[in-house]
Amino acid sequence: MEKLNALYAQSGGVTAVINASACGVIETAREHGHAIGKVYAARNGIIGALTEDLIDTSQESDADIAALKHTPAGAFGSCRHKLGSLEKNRKAYERLVDVFSAHQIRYFFYNGGGDSQDTAFKVSQISRELGYPIICIGIPKTVDNDLPFTDNSPGFGSVAKYVGVSIREAGMDVASMALTSTKVFILEVMGRHAGWIAAAGGLAAEKEGDSPHIILFPERPLQVENFLSRVKTCIDRYEHCSIVVSEGVKNAEGNFIADQGLVDAFGHKQLGGVAPVIANLIKEKLGYKYHWALADYLQRAARHIASQTDVEQAYAVGKAAVEMALAGKNAIMPIIVRGKNHPYSWTIGEAPLEMVANVEIKMPDHFISADGYGITTACREYLSPLIQGEAYPPYHNGLPVYVTLKNLPVAKKLKTAFDIA
Amino acid sequence: MEKLNALYAQSGGVTAVINASACGVIETAREHGHAIGKVYAARNGIIGALTEDLIDTSQESDADIAALKHTPAGAFGSCRHKLGSLEKNRKAYERLVDVFSAHQIRYFFYNGGGDSQDTAFKVSQISRELGYPIICIGIPKTVDNDLPFTDNSPGFGSVAKYVGVSIREAGMDVASMALTSTKVFILEVMGRHAGWIAAAGGLAAEKEGDSPHIILFPERPLQVENFLSRVKTCIDRYEHCSIVVSEGVKNAEGNFIADQGLVDAFGHKQLGGVAPVIANLIKEKLGYKYHWALADYLQRAARHIASQTDVEQAYAVGKAAVEMALAGKNAIMPIIVRGKNHPYSWTIGEAPLEMVANVEIKMPDHFISADGYGITTACREYLSPLIQGEAYPPYHNGLPVYVTLKNLPVAKKLKTAFDIA
Repeated sequence: MEKLNALYAQSGGVTAVINASACGVIETAREHGHAIGKVYAARNGIIGALTEDLIDTSQESDADIAALKHTPAGAFGSCRHKLGSLEKNRKAYERLVDVFSAHQIRYFFYNGGGDSQDTAFKVSQISRELGYPIICIGIPKTVDNDLPFTDNSPGFGSVAKYVGVSIREAGMDVASMALTSTKVFILEVMGRHAGWIAAAGGLAAEKEGDSPHIILFPERPLQVENFLSRVKTCIDRYEHCSIVVSEGVKNAEGNFIADQGLVDAFGHKQLGGVAPVIANLIKEKLGYKYHWALADYLQRAARHIASQTDVEQAYAVGKAAVEMALAGKNAIMPIIVRGKNHPYSWTIGEAPLEMVANVEIKMPDHFISADGYGITTACREYLSPLIQGEAYPPYHNGLPVYVTLKNLPVAKKLKTAFDIA
Repeated sequence: MEKLNALYAQSGGVTAVINASACGVIETAREHGHAIGKVYAARNGIIGALTEDLIDTSQESDADIAALKHTPAGAFGSCRHKLGSLEKNRKAYERLVDVFSAHQIRYFFYNGGGDSQDTAFKVSQISRELGYPIICIGIPKTVDNDLPFTDNSPGFGSVAKYVGVSIREAGMDVASMALTSTKVFILEVMGRHAGWIAAAGGLAAEKEGDSPHIILFPERPLQVENFLSRVKTCIDRYEHCSIVVSEGVKNAEGNFIADQGLVDAFGHKQLGGVAPVIANLIKEKLGYKYHWALADYLQRAARHIASQTDVEQAYAVGKAAVEMALAGKNAIMPIIVRGKNHPYSWTIGEAPLEMVANVEIKMPDHFISADGYGITTACREYLSPLIQGEAYPPYHNGLPVYVTLKNLPVAKKLKTAFDIA
């Protein structure tokens, strides 16, 4: 009798540690070779599953799979693609059953954020609705840290560390330059709907005067006069001012400041970039020389400065997903459960996919300081453990060595193609 | 008899390793305590020297001075301030003599780029023109790598490493996202007049298909149609396209593309940012979804990923400056002299300040590939040794531990203030 196979896929924006989860899945499945046959990976997330574009991970060496643990981005490709409901999009689910069935796939592991856990939940319904016995486990991942139930999301800790390290360094730079040159430095970070990543910048400010001096959160509409006065106070007091701004900051009317925007030389609206708008405002109203940086993908791809805690947790949820599947569980997602803060301890728990899907967790109000420009002690207590430890990748010739898998395709067995709507 | 003192100062844009040079100066001076009394540091470069705003580094512990080796930015503050010629600005030079004389300063070490070496050269003329026996040694520093005589400039190697690491990581990210989302990633890096930093991104491209696929150099005017066609070819071939663009890229008419620029919602011209202009061009003409990052200060402050080679060389030129001064040399700058490439070897040489001042070295033409979008093997051979080795700083609580010196002021001895013009 052929053994039952597993399918693993990555979804949504990738992170510095999503491949560590892939490593956890594949290594754990290999340890349970008596129970699980091959681990296939869907190329580009659920799209690869629908189009029968599968990768045979058994063709990869143990060393290459181990190297996933220190390799950023999505080793099998990711996608942004939502499955409609089973009622409205039954053909897609029937197609999945065809693909699963053709390749003896009984375990499906979907690694992603809120939208992706929605997909995972829908796939888990196949068993009941279409009668094909698939076990579906979601694996959490998102730099946005907005998944419910889990204490934190794998991927976030490394972005948090990157932002903390970067604003500490750039803040020291602007402090050096302030007398005759740049007085204000602005770092724009991700987080369209929640200020978790911006808040992480606050970890760098350990004592009076440390950078960042101001954090602008999506949770707090920008009060222009108050903000400018705060900038001026910083310069009067410290001779410079370092600011972390979330891409999701809104004006008093509730519109994204990044969208109020810039127009290029051709008159076209220029999307992206709240930092230059803030910088211009400061230059215009206060006259200070500024510099600004937009970290963009650098922050979520920065495996070179990944958090050891994050890497371990990302691996652990991958491993747990396989163990849960083998224990006969279904339609759940392994989560991080915090034990103590001092010393930090955590274990793996589980949450039902049905309740995880499409829920976004905001920053608690009491994590933002009363003036709206910093983080509270409670926030620091929460964030600090997540950036602990440096999980450096190996280097060769001065650059990190990241693995590129062979990603050999599995021969297609279905006679028909499938059109992604 | 009181021993003769030294004055050290930092100038121009700071780097991840300029403090390693400061460490080299101070530690070496401490080793020669029989010959050198105190090492003072001028607060904020030459301005501190002119205003008698001096710091007594003898008040700092050996451990804190040693920590400068892993601390980015300018520990004593920097400045952008050019001294006029001795003829036109005689008062400033007379003031320096007053300050030097009041504090028994006979050695002056000025740590900076081309403009700063011009200042150092002028100070070195004091001895001959004003009869005060000052020995002046320049210490090279610049991320731009544009100083003459020296094989490379301390500060550059670490930026080069940062850019190589970052584009490798972000390139893998966009490759993962390309099927359904972002297809083009653009990283803007420093280098207003020369493409050294952009070229360093090319180190990440070790084999066909690796990021970056395109480098835009200030040395090559942007040919829009040709560039767009190249982007399209990349996407056709690799499904994604990673681009490193130098801030100094010009259009066919020779104007900075960053200046052709953006206008904000208030109609004000928005300076800075060639990346968004390139991104918009691609979106407009080819329709691809893009992301872009602007590294700005992050790249030159990134001590967390500094090159070990760079740190060692920065320390060595600081150390050599003191040794040269003690050997009675004057008006020179220690330089890096390359020995072999395999294995890389280097020694310290010297160059006369008179010939260093105000000379900018461009990238050799044969370092840019024939198509204008990449680096040649010769360029790779030159750049690769400069990014070797990882000189990680210590960490505490997940963040790098950088030293903040006490920077205690030296009591002023002059009765007059000095007005910086």
